[in-house]
Amino acid sequence: MSVKTPDFLSETAQVDGAAVEPLPSSRKIYVTGSRPDIRVPMREILLSDTQTADGPESNDPVLVYDTSGPYTDPDARIDLRRGLPALRERWIEERGDTETLADFSSAFTRRRHRDPLLDADRFSHHRKPRRAKAGHNVSQLHYARQGIITPEMEFIAIRENMKLQEARESGLLDSQHPGQSHGANIPREITPEFVRDEVARGRAIIPANINHPETEPMIIGRNFLVKINGNIGNSAVTSSIEEEVEKLTWGTRWGSDTVMDLSTGKNIHETRDWILRNSPVPIGTVPIYQALEKVDGEAEALTWEIFRDTLIEQAEQGVDYFTIHAGVRLHHVPLTAERTTGIVSRGGSIMAKWCLAHHRESFLYTHFEDICEIMKAYDVAFSLGDGLRPGSVADASDAAQYGELETLGELTKIAWKHDVQVMVEGPGHVPMHLVKENMDKQLECCDEAPFYTLGPLVTDIAPGYDHITSGIGAAMIGWYGCAMLCYVTPKEHLGLPNKDDVKTGIITYRIAAHAADLAKGHPGAQLRDDALSKARFQFRWEDQFNLGLDPDTARAYHDETLPKDSAKVAHFCSMCGPKFCSMKISHEVQEYAREHGLDSVEAVEAGMEEKAEEFRQSGKLYEVK
Amino acid sequence: MSVKTPDFLSETAQVDGAAVEPLPSSRKIYVTGSRPDIRVPMREILLSDTQTADGPESNDPVLVYDTSGPYTDPDARIDLRRGLPALRERWIEERGDTETLADFSSAFTRRRHRDPLLDADRFSHHRKPRRAKAGHNVSQLHYARQGIITPEMEFIAIRENMKLQEARESGLLDSQHPGQSHGANIPREITPEFVRDEVARGRAIIPANINHPETEPMIIGRNFLVKINGNIGNSAVTSSIEEEVEKLTWGTRWGSDTVMDLSTGKNIHETRDWILRNSPVPIGTVPIYQALEKVDGEAEALTWEIFRDTLIEQAEQGVDYFTIHAGVRLHHVPLTAERTTGIVSRGGSIMAKWCLAHHRESFLYTHFEDICEIMKAYDVAFSLGDGLRPGSVADASDAAQYGELETLGELTKIAWKHDVQVMVEGPGHVPMHLVKENMDKQLECCDEAPFYTLGPLVTDIAPGYDHITSGIGAAMIGWYGCAMLCYVTPKEHLGLPNKDDVKTGIITYRIAAHAADLAKGHPGAQLRDDALSKARFQFRWEDQFNLGLDPDTARAYHDETLPKDSAKVAHFCSMCGPKFCSMKISHEVQEYAREHGLDSVEAVEAGMEEKAEEFRQSGKLYEVK
Repeated sequence: MSVKTPDFLSETAQVDGAAVEPLPSSRKIYVTGSRPDIRVPMREILLSDTQTADGPESNDPVLVYDTSGPYTDPDARIDLRRGLPALRERWIEERGDTETLADFSSAFTRRRHRDPLLDADRFSHHRKPRRAKAGHNVSQLHYARQGIITPEMEFIAIRENMKLQEARESGLLDSQHPGQSHGANIPREITPEFVRDEVARGRAIIPANINHPETEPMIIGRNFLVKINGNIGNSAVTSSIEEEVEKLTWGTRWGSDTVMDLSTGKNIHETRDWILRNSPVPIGTVPIYQALEKVDGEAEALTWEIFRDTLIEQAEQGVDYFTIHAGVRLHHVPLTAERTTGIVSRGGSIMAKWCLAHHRESFLYTHFEDICEIMKAYDVAFSLGDGLRPGSVADASDAAQYGELETLGELTKIAWKHDVQVMVEGPGHVPMHLVKENMDKQLECCDEAPFYTLGPLVTDIAPGYDHITSGIGAAMIGWYGCAMLCYVTPKEHLGLPNKDDVKTGIITYRIAAHAADLAKGHPGAQLRDDALSKARFQFRWEDQFNLGLDPDTARAYHDETLPKDSAKVAHFCSMCGPKFCSMKISHEVQEYAREHGLDSVEAVEAGMEEKAEEFRQSGKLYEVK
Repeated sequence: MSVKTPDFLSETAQVDGAAVEPLPSSRKIYVTGSRPDIRVPMREILLSDTQTADGPESNDPVLVYDTSGPYTDPDARIDLRRGLPALRERWIEERGDTETLADFSSAFTRRRHRDPLLDADRFSHHRKPRRAKAGHNVSQLHYARQGIITPEMEFIAIRENMKLQEARESGLLDSQHPGQSHGANIPREITPEFVRDEVARGRAIIPANINHPETEPMIIGRNFLVKINGNIGNSAVTSSIEEEVEKLTWGTRWGSDTVMDLSTGKNIHETRDWILRNSPVPIGTVPIYQALEKVDGEAEALTWEIFRDTLIEQAEQGVDYFTIHAGVRLHHVPLTAERTTGIVSRGGSIMAKWCLAHHRESFLYTHFEDICEIMKAYDVAFSLGDGLRPGSVADASDAAQYGELETLGELTKIAWKHDVQVMVEGPGHVPMHLVKENMDKQLECCDEAPFYTLGPLVTDIAPGYDHITSGIGAAMIGWYGCAMLCYVTPKEHLGLPNKDDVKTGIITYRIAAHAADLAKGHPGAQLRDDALSKARFQFRWEDQFNLGLDPDTARAYHDETLPKDSAKVAHFCSMCGPKFCSMKISHEVQEYAREHGLDSVEAVEAGMEEKAEEFRQSGKLYEVK
């Protein structure tokens, strides 16, 4: 069991060296928007030349969506103790609808800040908390509905668009498959107005707490690129603040669009500070976990007051979305009695226990509108938790799950009434043939509010490989319209994921999300596949590695059998060896065809005529057809 | 680069110790058929008791399909130098339609047997080759069409059925989801007559060369359990006979239903002998690889005579199915000229090169009926190769691919005319939205002959993770009706897979095949999921590990953070720790509900009435709905 390393102190914290290494042959670029402080980061992968008979031909660099933040920018000065620059601070101030508070509103926060025992672990350079002025709503949804295009929205339009027009003009999109969108409505180009409109409609959310100005704005909605979330967080059994911050920087390096801090161990508050101040991506939490800690794990002892203070505590730290299991209603609980795996959501089981013990609807449900009031004052988005999601194939799509989903639909509309952003969480364990039903039912119940699913896992029989059982379901539901896919690591059901598990989970889910974008026909999604395949066919090995989701692993696998540099230009690998490389032979075929003018069906068929006679003689199958 | 270990000699060969370890808490059982020599192996996973308030409750063992052969039978005497027992020998003899030859028919084989330089590497206990008597056809398809139920067919019925009736009678199937079969027609029970009928119809094949009597009969068809294939084989760059035999025993241990020996390096003939004599599963090959070796890698130099001798050489060794790229026709070749990745099938590129060089149809196409004559004399099944499969998302479903598929449809019907068994190979790289189109088109072109696909890979951008990019496509196409899924390992596109890669590929594909069986609603498919989920919910950790596809990895992951034996009964793991285990809380919820008579919706709603008033007072959301 790992323990907090003693040297991780508020004054000596160091960034993980692996997280700040530049990615191979990549360059960080920024695309500037309508104002100089809208600088949208992208990763440009530089390629080598193609060697042709007429000399070298250059290959355009490939742009990819970049979630890694300043960590991969060689010009950035990274200091975990001070946190990342407050990218959005001025945008928030300019809106003039917020005020800076003299101190944190949460009694709990103030106690933690005063506690000398926490000095060593505390992130000590706090910014003062910000809150909406009385009577104001600072949610991106509220702005969108008033027709306001915020800098966040413009930032997102540039980010999602990824210079698509340039690629289109140079014909790079012509070869892309049209795809099958299952009712998604993805435009040819993402404009700031389209972003605003989708947010106003409730079909997309921008998790952007005013107390988390470090975030690079991103959007979650079915008409945008499919996003993925990585879960981190300690448990009572293992891990430390340092390890969790490393998981954050490691996870975002490999492509985590948002990160949830699911800590349930010690120093939850302090861990969250370190994560938020150093995170370029939105952070989500499940506040009931910390509330439960505050009552020593006794679900029955939870009260609205304790929960409310926890929401404010976390909102003022800057959490961008809260998972709230308000859909678990008292009368749903008995529906889980006969299940194979009962209630497998932590939050769901906690609230079910509370409901039964008090024999009342949960305070999350009865105080839902009070919660909305808090959310709108900081722009925290709802992630309506699916507390009754199936934990096994046997329990998939049962009355408890769908009963809760209908309640989540009601709550979505109540949140929208308050101009509060909402996404809705989904399963879980679902066999393939029920995945589409789950997606369609959510779209219907929740009026197209973004769906955010855990997997789903399409079978229960592979503990140790649930990144794969769930990656299958994730790719499919992403194609059908799911907006964000919550990763599952190889450790699911077995233990707390470590840094390696985080990377494996992230890469698996990047695969699922990208496969979904391709299948939906998202404009430009195929550019990276085409560039990589072209490099592969031309034996530009380094380019093939660098264009992949994980260049390090690809290179290591290749070098296991052919480590020499010369092998990086060889027209074969150890799989088939020099004589059996199909692509090498294929080049010879194409060359021969060119030389002999046999590169068209017509030319070949003309030639066939001469030969036809001898085949007829042979009496072979030739005339069978 | 690894080299052949010198101690691997014809007299000192040793089985891989890891391959003969019994699987944890598992017992090999045999179900006897209508005659004592029909003994069908299955693996029985023994479970621990459930601890209830009223004392322990026993859990029935779970039966699983077992591809591992005698290696996991503690009573079996394994000696690689002598090979496995000839399980089917008497069945073949009894049919009286074959004769034993004095010597091998292939001139090449006889030369290899005489060559003293090969003494050290040679498998020295050859059985004499067997061939159909003149004018006879010994294929399972031929027997099936005459209404004969062979012992192989009965064996398969028992094997596929896996004591389903017992499970059904004890109600274990009641909770299974019906599934969506996409036109598959899976009966409530697999009978020998059903097996015969499906084979006669051409909808399923039984790869069972009369010279491979060591095989435990298995079937490939969409109305049976979805099967997977693992590729092994050396290359000119790396690996040895010993390593390849280890991959065979390792791959079948983890669930490979068939194995293809794709060797292209040295001693291809000897390697194949060692593999066949020690393989309990059908072995497939691509004969053109060895034929090319015989002409020193010069595709143009290939002739029908060399290929024919190679077919006979391998048929008399006992290869159960041949991949033959007879669908690559001269006029298809120019259709690949503009492709992003040209021709990526080794066999396809070799034949394309031959066709262009000679400007004729390939001898595989013109001599197809001669090939059928050889196949029927040994009962070798066709695996019609997709030589023009797409090697990138960009090339998916193009004119070259579908043009070849139509030719494969013609060839299927010609093989059927000869009562020769056929399956058809498929892609490749295919985005998700085109996977079903590929399946449907194959069913239509090839009149439901079994489809056997490589993946498909749903994106090109993850070298190092192509077991996952392809596992997604494999699960989907298996659901849509694909009969066998050819695995892809993490090394795909990068190098020759080693033993670890083989295991990773096999487990990934077992996941895909099982997910497909579940989604199709294959009777009994959910039994293992239900048993594992029940064990999970009851914190029977050892049972959860042992019921999984890879108990070793599951246990290792769990023990990484909680190695103590006490943790194997603990009601939590390091993921959530003791206070946050949803399943533990869920048990408390169920207990409370029982104690307070709140385990029905009615009971809860009755209780609600009393409480209703105070909620109305509160003016909260309660009446909003």
